[in-house]
Amino acid sequence: MVVKSQIKLIKSLRQKKYRIQHRMFVAEGIKTVQELLRSNFGVYKIYVTDSAQLKIKHHQGELISESELNVMSSLKNPNGVLAVFYFPEAKPVDFTDWLVVLDGINDPGNLGTIIRLCDWFGIRHLVCSPNTVDCFNPKVLQATMGSISRINVVYRELPDFLSNVGVPIYGAYMQGETIYKKEVSKTGILVMGNEANGISKEVEALINEKISIPQFGKETTESLNVATATAILLSEIRRDRIANPTRT
Amino acid sequence: MVVKSQIKLIKSLRQKKYRIQHRMFVAEGIKTVQELLRSNFGVYKIYVTDSAQLKIKHHQGELISESELNVMSSLKNPNGVLAVFYFPEAKPVDFTDWLVVLDGINDPGNLGTIIRLCDWFGIRHLVCSPNTVDCFNPKVLQATMGSISRINVVYRELPDFLSNVGVPIYGAYMQGETIYKKEVSKTGILVMGNEANGISKEVEALINEKISIPQFGKETTESLNVATATAILLSEIRRDRIANPTRT
Repeated sequence: MVVKSQIKLIKSLRQKKYRIQHRMFVAEGIKTVQELLRSNFGVYKIYVTDSAQLKIKHHQGELISESELNVMSSLKNPNGVLAVFYFPEAKPVDFTDWLVVLDGINDPGNLGTIIRLCDWFGIRHLVCSPNTVDCFNPKVLQATMGSISRINVVYRELPDFLSNVGVPIYGAYMQGETIYKKEVSKTGILVMGNEANGISKEVEALINEKISIPQFGKETTESLNVATATAILLSEIRRDRIANPTRT
Repeated sequence: MVVKSQIKLIKSLRQKKYRIQHRMFVAEGIKTVQELLRSNFGVYKIYVTDSAQLKIKHHQGELISESELNVMSSLKNPNGVLAVFYFPEAKPVDFTDWLVVLDGINDPGNLGTIIRLCDWFGIRHLVCSPNTVDCFNPKVLQATMGSISRINVVYRELPDFLSNVGVPIYGAYMQGETIYKKEVSKTGILVMGNEANGISKEVEALINEKISIPQFGKETTESLNVATATAILLSEIRRDRIANPTRT
């Protein structure tokens, strides 16, 4: 049986302030937990139901009932396992390859999708403004499908961070140079702005190139969702590398 | 005051079977309702709160209180207006430009995002298998941001529909020809499969070309989300048209 103090701790970790206080977060679902176990995340505790036990083989796994899992889970349909991990050590950001910077992303699903996209496109560092949603938010983790284990997500004051990067800074705008005709540099930074307000004034001052995705439909549509726009821009950046492998 | 029978009707429209029975659906939020009013959707009823009244000017608008809206709304945070529209007439699908076919998309957010993408990229027809989530599901409407008013979404048995199209049929696969090096035809069909299982066997038999988006990260990642993959593939199809405007 799971002791009350543990249940209280686990529930408290749904809130960012307690995650920061304890430097721990909760991951749920077989796939996500498996991916985190495979990586270097320190394990505090793993709770697993009978049905998921074969899939999560780990010496620290504690067998619990479905109803105990329901009490601890933040999901409508818990999926066999809930684990508490320690925050990973933030790695230093390097500029040898492209990286992505997020300026005030609010929606957990968008951040989770962008983390998953970084993983697909081999972007190792994701730098977020302090007002971007927390990457250990349960809904973000859910959307990353385990990709969080492979991406170095750090939170920085962007004007400070972007002042000294030594690589070109590209910002996604509604009005900018079309990405289809642009040759991008070999390394650089892609900045994506807030869902409603785009890139902030302070960050805009540091952007070297404004880029955009041309629209083909009627002009009544407002804009692409930030996660789908990130998908298209990262694809363009990588396809460019395939088309021009030797360019520096 | 909203009469009880109306509240009952509106709540019943959260379920697909009652939407089909009444041939009506509920739209919420100022932006979505505005877009639908601007289009050809027949209006059955509009309920609007005092705060939203100036934004939704319509002779049929009935003033209601915030608490009445809360009772009728399927949203956690209702946004000023709720309207009931009649189903639009399905238009005939034509093959003079690219169209998108969805084979068993389950997630309302994915379908909504794909409808919004079609709007951005000027795709006018979206053909869905009968087991794809209903496009008038409240969560789908929420994610389309009004784009639903500009896209002709129809539900068809895909093996039957795809048998007689007269244009090349491209299917998105994990293993296929890389889209970055492929020249696509001027018109064609892009088929996207179910989130977990991909394109069904029956539809696969009708695919002419298997295409895929190359992965740049470590191979441990599973796949791109279907909406982000659609974003990248539509972008590639349209960019190709820009690069080769005269090709047929």
